[in-house]
Amino acid sequence: MTEFELIEQVFAPLGGARPDVALGIGDDAALLRPPAGELLVACVDTLVAGVHFPPEMRAADIGYRAAAVNLSDLAAMGAQPRWATLALTLPAVRPVWLRQFAQGLRMALAAHEVALVGGDTTRGPLTISLQLLGSVPDGVALTRGGSRVGDAVFVSGSLGDSAAGLSLFGTAAPARSPAAWLTGRFRRPTPRLALGRALRGHASACIDVSDGLLADAGHLAERSAVQLRLWADALPRSTALLGLFDPDTALRWAATGGDDYELCFTVPPASVAVIEGLQRRLSCRLTQIGEVRAGAGVVLYGPDGSQCHWPNSGYRHF
Amino acid sequence: MTEFELIEQVFAPLGGARPDVALGIGDDAALLRPPAGELLVACVDTLVAGVHFPPEMRAADIGYRAAAVNLSDLAAMGAQPRWATLALTLPAVRPVWLRQFAQGLRMALAAHEVALVGGDTTRGPLTISLQLLGSVPDGVALTRGGSRVGDAVFVSGSLGDSAAGLSLFGTAAPARSPAAWLTGRFRRPTPRLALGRALRGHASACIDVSDGLLADAGHLAERSAVQLRLWADALPRSTALLGLFDPDTALRWAATGGDDYELCFTVPPASVAVIEGLQRRLSCRLTQIGEVRAGAGVVLYGPDGSQCHWPNSGYRHF
Repeated sequence: MTEFELIEQVFAPLGGARPDVALGIGDDAALLRPPAGELLVACVDTLVAGVHFPPEMRAADIGYRAAAVNLSDLAAMGAQPRWATLALTLPAVRPVWLRQFAQGLRMALAAHEVALVGGDTTRGPLTISLQLLGSVPDGVALTRGGSRVGDAVFVSGSLGDSAAGLSLFGTAAPARSPAAWLTGRFRRPTPRLALGRALRGHASACIDVSDGLLADAGHLAERSAVQLRLWADALPRSTALLGLFDPDTALRWAATGGDDYELCFTVPPASVAVIEGLQRRLSCRLTQIGEVRAGAGVVLYGPDGSQCHWPNSGYRHF
Repeated sequence: MTEFELIEQVFAPLGGARPDVALGIGDDAALLRPPAGELLVACVDTLVAGVHFPPEMRAADIGYRAAAVNLSDLAAMGAQPRWATLALTLPAVRPVWLRQFAQGLRMALAAHEVALVGGDTTRGPLTISLQLLGSVPDGVALTRGGSRVGDAVFVSGSLGDSAAGLSLFGTAAPARSPAAWLTGRFRRPTPRLALGRALRGHASACIDVSDGLLADAGHLAERSAVQLRLWADALPRSTALLGLFDPDTALRWAATGGDDYELCFTVPPASVAVIEGLQRRLSCRLTQIGEVRAGAGVVLYGPDGSQCHWPNSGYRHF
């Protein structure tokens, strides 16, 4: 079997069985049937070895994570994911690595019924670029630009776990230990797709927390031309994070650690009760962490009413 | 200006002004309006520095080429290109390089009215992955799978120029010289989009020549479950190629050199006259280079009726 045939064999099972795929992997391009009356939603995210994940990370986790961080972008738009294409750059074809990578990718894509419909495999330093396509009914997509003064600011799940988990990466952690749970939050983040769709018509703006809460809330504030006032006390922190780290470190990670892939969204006062209902229905913790005011930027208030500052807030791509 | 702002500023003008872009660069994902009743066409291609182009290639040429090789995939499907997203991995942000890259990319995209609607910029070894989205009316897309016994095999333009041009890369060549023309064919290939669309309803199968004629004709033969018999004498070679290289080298490049980005397609006998008309209308050389027979694979016959063989036919990705 040539390496080319191996790659075909490894990725063919990720083609899925969606009726909206007219032609999948194997031609010059894929042919897809977008649903009538819906907008197409398109995004791309790249993971570079040594930059976005430790080079020693397991292949299955790399594959899973590549899909999860992209699915998170569609979640933030309130979209239904449908199709993916993969641009995979590899230093060499190692069959075991490739099969495990595909297995992790498949697990994350199959959980949301996404079909891999094409791609390009090239030789070079390990780089994974995944493109996701989804759809959303016209007029209900969530964007970063709709927050209004008086809205409540919410976030899903807990914050800072992934940054803490990355700091523990490579240390020996017994299965089911808090440390293993935290590294798991880095290795296999949970994209909040059901939540994103449930927020259609309720949230006024939404973003996924990939660069760190303060940085991403800043993008939302900028696009909406408002100020977000956040309360440090309210930032949801997991038992594992609080058990393994001192309160200052835990707060810093919750506020500025990247890779959470939770959703940060704003809600008009009239819809706050809906959010409380959603929390129960989706079994997903949803916490109000602040409010929208007139002004610009993000301000984080400590329990004593003073502003919190960190020298480097949020992940910088360069 | 931060590097992040620079990147935004450089790529924003590539957003174009398409009415089918509901939301472009700047949110978690783009929102696009696919045309009613058409299929969506999606492809991705990656260029790695030192693998797909010489590291010293000019930034504007790299940007142009990244778009052109992707547009060529849509041409091979008979599609109308619409939108692009860019996954750009850079070792460092060099403003001049970035502006020139964007300028080259813009030139190639704007020539076909393609809007850049999103992307991801990351730090790492120079890697450009472009995703293109287009559309094609349902039922008329060109695929690799429709060749029938008795069809004629055609190719557009001339073959082998790009491989010859790459071999001359970096040598001093006066402007307008044959050597400069050949390197230009490598640096800025011409995607055959108008031809691809004109072949709808006429070609039985189509592929773009990216890995080399024999390799790509082989893909077409395999998908169509036929044999392609090609005539070495008929392979179109440019005056520049024949003027600078001996006939054996020119033939080898025409048959196996990659990066031509011409279209190789098959046509039922009843449609051959249409192809001759197209040649005039599109001012694009279209040459019959063989015929479709029962069997498998690709056979290239020399002028004396013997089969031509080369040890390595076609570009191997690994």
